[in-house]
Amino acid sequence: MSERPMVVMDGNSAVSHVAYACNEVAAIYPITPSSAMGEIADAKMAADEKNIYGTVTDVVELQSEGGASGAIHGSLTAGAMSTTFTASQGLLLMIPNMYKIAGELTSTVFHVSARSLAMQALSIFGDHSDVMATRQTGWALLAAASPQECMDMALIAQAATLETRIPFIHFFDGFRTSNEIQKIEALTIDDMKAMIDQDLVAAHRARGMRPEDPIVRGTSQNPDVYFQGRETVNPYYVATPDKVQATMDRFAKLVGREYHLFDYVGAPDAERVVVVMGSGADVMHETVEKLAADGEKVGVVKVRLYRPFSARAFLDAIPDTCQSIAVLDRTKEPGSAGEPLYQDVQTALFEAVNNGERASLPMVVGGRYGLGSKEFTPAMGKAVLDNLSADKPRNHFTIGIKEDVTNTSLDYEAGWSTETDAVKRALFFGLGSDGTVGATKNTCKIIGKGTDYFAQNYAVYDSKKAGAITISHVRFSPERIRSAYLIGEADFVGCNSEPMLFQYDMVGKLKQGGTFLLNSIHAANKVWDTLPRQVQEQLIAKKAKFYVLDGYDVANKVGLGGRINVIMQTAYFKLAGILPEDKAQAMIEAEVHNTYGKKGDKIVEMNIEAARQALAHLHEVTVPASATSDVPMATLALDGASDFVREVTAPLIQGLGDDLPVSKMPADGTFPTATTQFEKRCIALNIPDFDASLCIQCGMCAMVCPHSV
Amino acid sequence: MSERPMVVMDGNSAVSHVAYACNEVAAIYPITPSSAMGEIADAKMAADEKNIYGTVTDVVELQSEGGASGAIHGSLTAGAMSTTFTASQGLLLMIPNMYKIAGELTSTVFHVSARSLAMQALSIFGDHSDVMATRQTGWALLAAASPQECMDMALIAQAATLETRIPFIHFFDGFRTSNEIQKIEALTIDDMKAMIDQDLVAAHRARGMRPEDPIVRGTSQNPDVYFQGRETVNPYYVATPDKVQATMDRFAKLVGREYHLFDYVGAPDAERVVVVMGSGADVMHETVEKLAADGEKVGVVKVRLYRPFSARAFLDAIPDTCQSIAVLDRTKEPGSAGEPLYQDVQTALFEAVNNGERASLPMVVGGRYGLGSKEFTPAMGKAVLDNLSADKPRNHFTIGIKEDVTNTSLDYEAGWSTETDAVKRALFFGLGSDGTVGATKNTCKIIGKGTDYFAQNYAVYDSKKAGAITISHVRFSPERIRSAYLIGEADFVGCNSEPMLFQYDMVGKLKQGGTFLLNSIHAANKVWDTLPRQVQEQLIAKKAKFYVLDGYDVANKVGLGGRINVIMQTAYFKLAGILPEDKAQAMIEAEVHNTYGKKGDKIVEMNIEAARQALAHLHEVTVPASATSDVPMATLALDGASDFVREVTAPLIQGLGDDLPVSKMPADGTFPTATTQFEKRCIALNIPDFDASLCIQCGMCAMVCPHSV
Repeated sequence: MSERPMVVMDGNSAVSHVAYACNEVAAIYPITPSSAMGEIADAKMAADEKNIYGTVTDVVELQSEGGASGAIHGSLTAGAMSTTFTASQGLLLMIPNMYKIAGELTSTVFHVSARSLAMQALSIFGDHSDVMATRQTGWALLAAASPQECMDMALIAQAATLETRIPFIHFFDGFRTSNEIQKIEALTIDDMKAMIDQDLVAAHRARGMRPEDPIVRGTSQNPDVYFQGRETVNPYYVATPDKVQATMDRFAKLVGREYHLFDYVGAPDAERVVVVMGSGADVMHETVEKLAADGEKVGVVKVRLYRPFSARAFLDAIPDTCQSIAVLDRTKEPGSAGEPLYQDVQTALFEAVNNGERASLPMVVGGRYGLGSKEFTPAMGKAVLDNLSADKPRNHFTIGIKEDVTNTSLDYEAGWSTETDAVKRALFFGLGSDGTVGATKNTCKIIGKGTDYFAQNYAVYDSKKAGAITISHVRFSPERIRSAYLIGEADFVGCNSEPMLFQYDMVGKLKQGGTFLLNSIHAANKVWDTLPRQVQEQLIAKKAKFYVLDGYDVANKVGLGGRINVIMQTAYFKLAGILPEDKAQAMIEAEVHNTYGKKGDKIVEMNIEAARQALAHLHEVTVPASATSDVPMATLALDGASDFVREVTAPLIQGLGDDLPVSKMPADGTFPTATTQFEKRCIALNIPDFDASLCIQCGMCAMVCPHSV
Repeated sequence: MSERPMVVMDGNSAVSHVAYACNEVAAIYPITPSSAMGEIADAKMAADEKNIYGTVTDVVELQSEGGASGAIHGSLTAGAMSTTFTASQGLLLMIPNMYKIAGELTSTVFHVSARSLAMQALSIFGDHSDVMATRQTGWALLAAASPQECMDMALIAQAATLETRIPFIHFFDGFRTSNEIQKIEALTIDDMKAMIDQDLVAAHRARGMRPEDPIVRGTSQNPDVYFQGRETVNPYYVATPDKVQATMDRFAKLVGREYHLFDYVGAPDAERVVVVMGSGADVMHETVEKLAADGEKVGVVKVRLYRPFSARAFLDAIPDTCQSIAVLDRTKEPGSAGEPLYQDVQTALFEAVNNGERASLPMVVGGRYGLGSKEFTPAMGKAVLDNLSADKPRNHFTIGIKEDVTNTSLDYEAGWSTETDAVKRALFFGLGSDGTVGATKNTCKIIGKGTDYFAQNYAVYDSKKAGAITISHVRFSPERIRSAYLIGEADFVGCNSEPMLFQYDMVGKLKQGGTFLLNSIHAANKVWDTLPRQVQEQLIAKKAKFYVLDGYDVANKVGLGGRINVIMQTAYFKLAGILPEDKAQAMIEAEVHNTYGKKGDKIVEMNIEAARQALAHLHEVTVPASATSDVPMATLALDGASDFVREVTAPLIQGLGDDLPVSKMPADGTFPTATTQFEKRCIALNIPDFDASLCIQCGMCAMVCPHSV
């Protein structure tokens, strides 16, 4: 067995690493946030990378997800090990083929970065609505909660589908897990070969249709026998939970990480228990660890195998002392008796009482959280547990928003945190396409490789992408990081775009005594007076260390234009002090080679030069004792705006949408037109000057300006 | 108000009657068994029939159900009252648009003849798998149990969707209800105008997008507000059950038929209760009526509004004396904690205990029935109730099949029946496309119009259609007919195709003293010796009256070729004696005009002539005291057949598939090839003679013969 390398990668990359290696065919169609899985597989094929069967996997893009699922059905029916990657509406289009694949007891894994569905509005972000819309198809559903689990569960699913003949959806939270970068242990090709039983692969191939040994599938069955034909699969589903557990046990023996169908964490004598799956499970893990350490009798059941739902394994996971249970669903099914995981927990307990296994029912309540990648934090997790301590716990609640229409939302204490000083936290504010996100990813790689720290990086950006704000949330920790939520207070805040300082309260995220680095065109002795008063006051009150660096000047001089990312990265390493300066410098240069090598020597040289010059331009600013500025934070020009624009559109533009209560949102997704006029994004470094002497009145300017200025 | 006519029509026709009138646009795509709804709407448009808004509804066929649902989404967004009709995979393709339509709170009704989904095999027949695959979309789901309810619920759904702004699926059992012909009371245009609130129609139109008053829909929402946007709909769903009940109450006041969200039937002090929806609810109605009359403390809750699921209304419907509940689901979700209606019932009861409304849980078990139009009879319903009397009632059971793999099936006493002598029952055996089904439909119309009898006609035919056996199950009853299952014992059995007598045990279905009519080329004094011995024995043992008629001879003489349907129909009227002979004759002739009028005077005249000549060729056969024949029933030539063909294919061909246990069926839908060689269907009246003297050895014969004879 070769040694397992520690790598820094996101959930999508972790999945694709396994899925490519374990399959011979991947039929793909891109949809956010799953696209990277297909793209990585495609790149591996282009690089002639071999799968565990010794061949190059055939990665083919179809015309839609309907076509991709049909192609996979065909490929499976021909006996090939086959997979696909999708999310959201893409998964919905696969449903008809999924029924057939399950009905024909065909081994396959679809890897799904779970995403919201378009209802009142589209959302490209994460929740479990798509996966839950397939729970009736007869597929197994296996959840991963983190990038490490993405890699592990991808392999467990690939092995278990062969053991069980049940097709698997392996899913994980879109964006929160698919796009979160973590330092994880990579499984090796040897691991995959050890887990995938070649006899079962041979049996799968033998079930394929071929002219030498013709069989008929896809028949039509009449009322006389269709029902009987539907019930033939029962023993396969009955056997699946145990076979998945056996596969997990084999994996644990091989790799060392233990998983169970339901994993319990918390006080052994817990009275209040939360049941949850996906990345929320890691958040609850962190939450109950802190609360249990403080003596609270709380715990969490992390759901791994959601389908087939093993009531026995679930009941075994709940401590006997448990008196009340809160079930968290990351989906909403309007008009249902309750969300799906909530109902499954009730069914398991109901049957236990009916069977005489339990004397009485515990209190069980259900709630919704995290729809469309709404944050789910330990503070919210604590509120869910606190609700269980109430005389009459609220049921069918929501957590994480203010729901003031039917008043379902639980209050939570936003400031409550599980973060410790052992974890280094940094926030980098940049603009989409300015290189900040990529540089931060490299920063994680450097620290991941160069130290024993675990690293996590999650970039927040909105669906406008280029030119919109990006905030990279970076943690370094001596322990495995389960904080699948944004940083509340950071040791370090870096602002790569000065105009944003006037629009976003970024220094508000800085912790007491933290470091603020500003990319500024102003010199260290001039910059103070240019800051908004609010920022001055915050820096003083927080006793912050404040640095400036004119990244644009450095970048311009070495020929990089506006690409300041490597410069700011170098400054971060200097200020964070995680690595010795010379080691950091060497590793930054190595990553420059990795990242820009394909773009040619010149780009590499310019970036290396930028990194070398950066520190000479980094200057500490002495923070005065009192604020002097009369510069205000940016406000929106709302002249003539309607109440709706003032109350809804304006907070959305200002990044305050999280605070909007439900009552402010249109019930049916209908919005007023002509509101872009209120969004002055101020993202251009330079604005063209109109030179009347050159104008020939062609009129093209009015055509080309998207805002008709 | 105009008087409501009694009409004889199937569920599809009943729905289309309402759906066409209440909508301005119908985007359609055909799929069995929903196609007739779209076809009827199309024909109404072609005939310039006006809807209740005074316009001709625009019926347009799209390229697939995906397109149909997209067109409806667009049409609704433009403010038009819009509908579609679909089933099975067609409904699955609509799911992405359904989420959007619900998210935008858009009023519409999709009328769905619920059908199985293709899994181990395709099935064109009925169950609730398709509808259940949409239960998470946020649509209301309203079930009809019979053709009368199809018409009523179609209108209630059309009215309620405007009241609630929640889109509705109105569904009913594919084939069993969609294709079952019953005598029902037709709603009038005045009824529809009275139920559809024009102010709400105006409000629906006003929400439409138009250039004069531009709005934005279909936006993208980011993690800041998507969750809040998703929760805005809560008050609409909370209000829906009461609004649907209010709509039902308005309907009852107007029309006289009362419906509730959940309708209870049975003993007021019932201890054992079944919960079920769709046509199975009528079967259980009939079952518990008989059992309760016999003193058993049993009842049934018929589910009308499945989504939004009103726990309060459900709990109110259950008698306080109830100790155990069996929930019947007409779907299978492998790997689930339980089927959906079962889980919803559990959730309602669980919450009642948690809330302190109930002291303890009743016993609740769930079972599957009727998949792919598998029969569900009172005998099976009784077995479900009997199971609740057991010490440990079986849970997750199946009923109606022998499930000998995981042993979930309940035994039932097939002979137990709720049928009474007040109901006249007739079975007509014909061949697909021979006109039997159409003639039987006309028979029902004649008796429906000419008498006070209620009429029911359900034709069983397999998916081979033309040339395959068709069995028309006809009931006439002084009371409303709830027998949504095949006839067990008939007063009359008519065989329109003599070769079938050797293949199917049709006289076995005749009750003691019943009448058997055979279309035979043999004269009355010769026919006895041509019968198989089994048929002779049955006729003797049952003291049957036996008649023959050479329908082909009559048909040939009047120029109708093989079209014997009107001839056999005339004989039935004579033998059944339901109408005076002259009245029957006049009404048969009137129906001939209705049915064949469009095909020209000659066809009409030939059929009328056939009807007039028929009775002269009808002869009673004296049944001897003992059987003399040594003619056996037909057997299959199974030389060289595998065990699988002998044990599975042969019973399938012989019409004995219902008796096949689950263990005999392939687990994954894989069948051997080359088995049509064992199916000699013997359906041709004439077989071509090969005349060697004319052959030019062109070889076309080998090309054109589907069996390469």
